[in-house]
Amino acid sequence: MTDPAPGRLLVAGTGLIGTSVALALRERGAQVWLADADEATARLAADLGAGTVIPDLRDAKGIADGAVIAVPPAAVAATLARAQDCAVADWYTDVASVKALPVTQARALGCELSSYVPGHPLAGRERSGPAAARADLFLGRTWALCPLPETSPDALAAVTGLVLACGADPVRADPATHDQWVALVSHAPHVVAAAMAARLAPSAVPGDALRLAGQGLRDVTRIAAGDSALWTQILTANAAPVAEVIAAVAADLAAAARSLAQSAASPGAPADVPGLLERGRAGAARIPGKHGGQPRNFTAVQVVIADRPGELARLFDAAGAAGVNIEDVRIEHSPGLPVGVAELSVRPDEATTLLDAMEAGGWPVRR
Amino acid sequence: MTDPAPGRLLVAGTGLIGTSVALALRERGAQVWLADADEATARLAADLGAGTVIPDLRDAKGIADGAVIAVPPAAVAATLARAQDCAVADWYTDVASVKALPVTQARALGCELSSYVPGHPLAGRERSGPAAARADLFLGRTWALCPLPETSPDALAAVTGLVLACGADPVRADPATHDQWVALVSHAPHVVAAAMAARLAPSAVPGDALRLAGQGLRDVTRIAAGDSALWTQILTANAAPVAEVIAAVAADLAAAARSLAQSAASPGAPADVPGLLERGRAGAARIPGKHGGQPRNFTAVQVVIADRPGELARLFDAAGAAGVNIEDVRIEHSPGLPVGVAELSVRPDEATTLLDAMEAGGWPVRR
Repeated sequence: MTDPAPGRLLVAGTGLIGTSVALALRERGAQVWLADADEATARLAADLGAGTVIPDLRDAKGIADGAVIAVPPAAVAATLARAQDCAVADWYTDVASVKALPVTQARALGCELSSYVPGHPLAGRERSGPAAARADLFLGRTWALCPLPETSPDALAAVTGLVLACGADPVRADPATHDQWVALVSHAPHVVAAAMAARLAPSAVPGDALRLAGQGLRDVTRIAAGDSALWTQILTANAAPVAEVIAAVAADLAAAARSLAQSAASPGAPADVPGLLERGRAGAARIPGKHGGQPRNFTAVQVVIADRPGELARLFDAAGAAGVNIEDVRIEHSPGLPVGVAELSVRPDEATTLLDAMEAGGWPVRR
Repeated sequence: MTDPAPGRLLVAGTGLIGTSVALALRERGAQVWLADADEATARLAADLGAGTVIPDLRDAKGIADGAVIAVPPAAVAATLARAQDCAVADWYTDVASVKALPVTQARALGCELSSYVPGHPLAGRERSGPAAARADLFLGRTWALCPLPETSPDALAAVTGLVLACGADPVRADPATHDQWVALVSHAPHVVAAAMAARLAPSAVPGDALRLAGQGLRDVTRIAAGDSALWTQILTANAAPVAEVIAAVAADLAAAARSLAQSAASPGAPADVPGLLERGRAGAARIPGKHGGQPRNFTAVQVVIADRPGELARLFDAAGAAGVNIEDVRIEHSPGLPVGVAELSVRPDEATTLLDAMEAGGWPVRR
């Protein structure tokens, strides 16, 4: 059962997520109150149209239907307790990226659990702060809802209404399971990317070695570029589940290394390697494709493009004129020359039409 | 010292790479002879304009200035020996992705080493065979040249001329160093991606967990989708260097796992993790950016786009009309809704112009 969007909302913590929720609800005509430990931040969010600042929660009794506690994981329980002490709303939810930690602390602080729905929207950008907030941040994104045994059905229905009002897809999981899932699909990959990228750092690796790098290395190491301090906090907050996943990856890699070393010494295919590669292929195939659901199979059409203003525009013009929808595009650059290869993904039955359009437009294609 | 492009070339092995070299030299007006163990493959390459089939190397004495041995690593030495026995050319090079193996076998077979320049163009696509070949395959790509102590300066100059004629950038390294480099930047990343993706395969991981996946997981695991059998061959051929890199990655991950497990048990930041993340960030920053050279800093502009035919075309039109060059584009999809976020990379001084053009065109932007 789901309620409609809340008519009155309080957002405690006007960072990227909190302000985005506020903007989404403002677009729905809700009354939104904004609170933040730093009042200047709340005022900035208000200036952006996110709502009205309420400087002191003690003045906020009964002011809202629901409250979104949008503060970092370590601050959730204390903020929740304060908001509940001030009786600001009928139901409460948080948005922290880990759930066991705030829940454990909320229990310890004696928070009222029947009105609390732990939650986590899977959205966000590298940029933070209210200025980066968008009303559409959650559009089509997954939003985890992790009700406790104590959580009332009414609170869950209300928070689900909030999630849907933001355009997101709710996914249910208990807090511990949620933390295992994000350890698997978000936190561990970050550490794995860092460990691969760390091999490139030593001064023993000359620049010429890196000139041999291709798109594969870039893909594997891309997320290693993140903020180390921030990620240390995230990993610390979810340490046990992340440790479990990383230990398993390390074990698989150590076994592969031993097999390869053995096959180098005495000829023969390395024992564990084909199995690991096959398991990896199967795992990667399970990741949902565009628009969720089963991974789609698109045909990739490769076109050589010059690096000039308007070149991509001409290319997409030509595709559009031919009635072809380009589902995805990736550009692989040619180090040393101002050309690149654009890989355009289209439905298989449109590939030939696109190829013809590209050649007619003068772009070399790779059939 | 570098020679001009060869006037007469023989290509032994008309797969993707061999046929592409042939096409590149045909564009330069060279006479190109094509040989393949499967004559039908050579004829296909000839039909594509790559040259003229020579069915029997015994009829090829002195037929070319140079010969490109474009067969798989395990077949290089035997093919080289045969070509040299038939005295087809003055100089020889190969294109195998590992160098120690063919070189060791060439020595064992008693090949003439003064005329042999082991080589490896860093180019190619997932698709194979002559039909996938392109004359511009090597444009702007790196091409490793690995002369032996016995290799004559004349042979090296001639092969360098070939590489430049293909539009590639030669990089020098001895064979063992080359193999360590490709282990690091190409082979090990593939195994690491597979090991992370393998964590997603077990039936214990429900579909809902994967709904939490974001772009980071997709990036890390993308190359795990490759052909397991092919990659097993590649890894086996470079087993010792790859084992070394993978063992180091495994060790770093095992240490991080232990630190995280310990910090879960007794509060405090995990010992090794900040250092690993920082080393990863530093390593990733060393990967050359677009067009080689130092990684460039572009400004990323995010635009919400609807998934309709012509939508991308309109967007690029607007950018082009504003005189903005879009350096790169990545599209992040919103599972569940037919919209996505296009992240357009532009020079920092063009970002505002682009943002204005996007808003004027009706696209929501994320400032």
